[in-house]
Amino acid sequence: MKTLKISEAVVRRLPVYLRHLKELKQSEVLTISSQDLGQKLDLNPAQIRKDLAYFGDFGRKGIGYDVSYLIEQIRHILKLDQQINVALVGAGKLGQALCNYSGFLNDNMKIVAVFDAFPAKIETAIRDLQVQPMEDLKESVEANNIRIGIITVPALEAQQVADRFVEAGVEAILNFAPVILKVPAHVRVHTADFSTDLFSLAYYLPNEGKDVVTNDTTIDHT
Amino acid sequence: MKTLKISEAVVRRLPVYLRHLKELKQSEVLTISSQDLGQKLDLNPAQIRKDLAYFGDFGRKGIGYDVSYLIEQIRHILKLDQQINVALVGAGKLGQALCNYSGFLNDNMKIVAVFDAFPAKIETAIRDLQVQPMEDLKESVEANNIRIGIITVPALEAQQVADRFVEAGVEAILNFAPVILKVPAHVRVHTADFSTDLFSLAYYLPNEGKDVVTNDTTIDHT
Repeated sequence: MKTLKISEAVVRRLPVYLRHLKELKQSEVLTISSQDLGQKLDLNPAQIRKDLAYFGDFGRKGIGYDVSYLIEQIRHILKLDQQINVALVGAGKLGQALCNYSGFLNDNMKIVAVFDAFPAKIETAIRDLQVQPMEDLKESVEANNIRIGIITVPALEAQQVADRFVEAGVEAILNFAPVILKVPAHVRVHTADFSTDLFSLAYYLPNEGKDVVTNDTTIDHT
Repeated sequence: MKTLKISEAVVRRLPVYLRHLKELKQSEVLTISSQDLGQKLDLNPAQIRKDLAYFGDFGRKGIGYDVSYLIEQIRHILKLDQQINVALVGAGKLGQALCNYSGFLNDNMKIVAVFDAFPAKIETAIRDLQVQPMEDLKESVEANNIRIGIITVPALEAQQVADRFVEAGVEAILNFAPVILKVPAHVRVHTADFSTDLFSLAYYLPNEGKDVVTNDTTIDHT
């Protein structure tokens, strides 16, 4: 299998390429060079060419990438050309924000069911989704062919929810709780931790305080 | 400057190490080997040793890393040993979830001010923070020495908010809107896009559907 050699870092850049290519398509741009793509994304063009070359020969020398074709190919690589149903557990503020998040809407990935342990929330609906009790999780995962579970519960409850997702037959989990989940090897987990984004951003803050910020800091971007 | 050689991928792993080391410390673990750390984090131990070696000689052969010492060192590298004040614009569901997110509380990074363009929201408070009108942003950034801005507004408003943050003197931005922001080179931007996490997860879904999932899929984790 070709995929075995491809690092997670490469896979995580594909959605970023996809998002930008869609913006280009909306602006009716037909082709883009790796140079222009790299400049927009603050990435080395050679890196972009190398990333995409793992999956196929998509560009043409002197012309660049056909925007529509590359969108189609990346969607295929990411399996976004098939419908992927997602369930979310934890109907709090974050869960509601995710359900309403428009970024998913253009693709075949949809949150089709929402669950919560607290009956008070179960009376409510988010978007067009009635919040369901946890007891219905397994049945819903099977009935709706749900392949990915999203966890937006507090840290202390996250492992228990992960266990329920695994038991229900989910194949991958996106975890927003700041804990490391233990799951069987056949279930893939990504942790979306806000503090990772924020703490890694702090690293790039100028050392010297605001008064001595200069344009030299641009070299930190590479 | 030593930092110039260090890739963003390395920097982004530091908060992950930090989170895990804190868990170990809570469990009263005193030392940890890169092997054990790697196993927990699903990372190659050599990768962990290499990442940390960029910043110093923290481990001891045959013993591993002193947990408390390494926590202290990573906090220093990430500049989390100084107080870093953060402002958030966009008091919707996601903004509220972030303000209430406990992951920041153990460190010196704090959301100290919240802003929103809609007066209806400004009457409300999140945690102990009164939501303020956008007109107060610049003054508040200066008065409270705010160095990082978080954007949780809809995509169409995000660039405008980024401009306001830059104008106010913020040095880094964490953007949750699914757009690529244009900012001057001295301002660092990280985009926290849910779809990146979710779409890259889809890549790892078994191709063949649920019925033929086998343990072979564990090799995808490397």
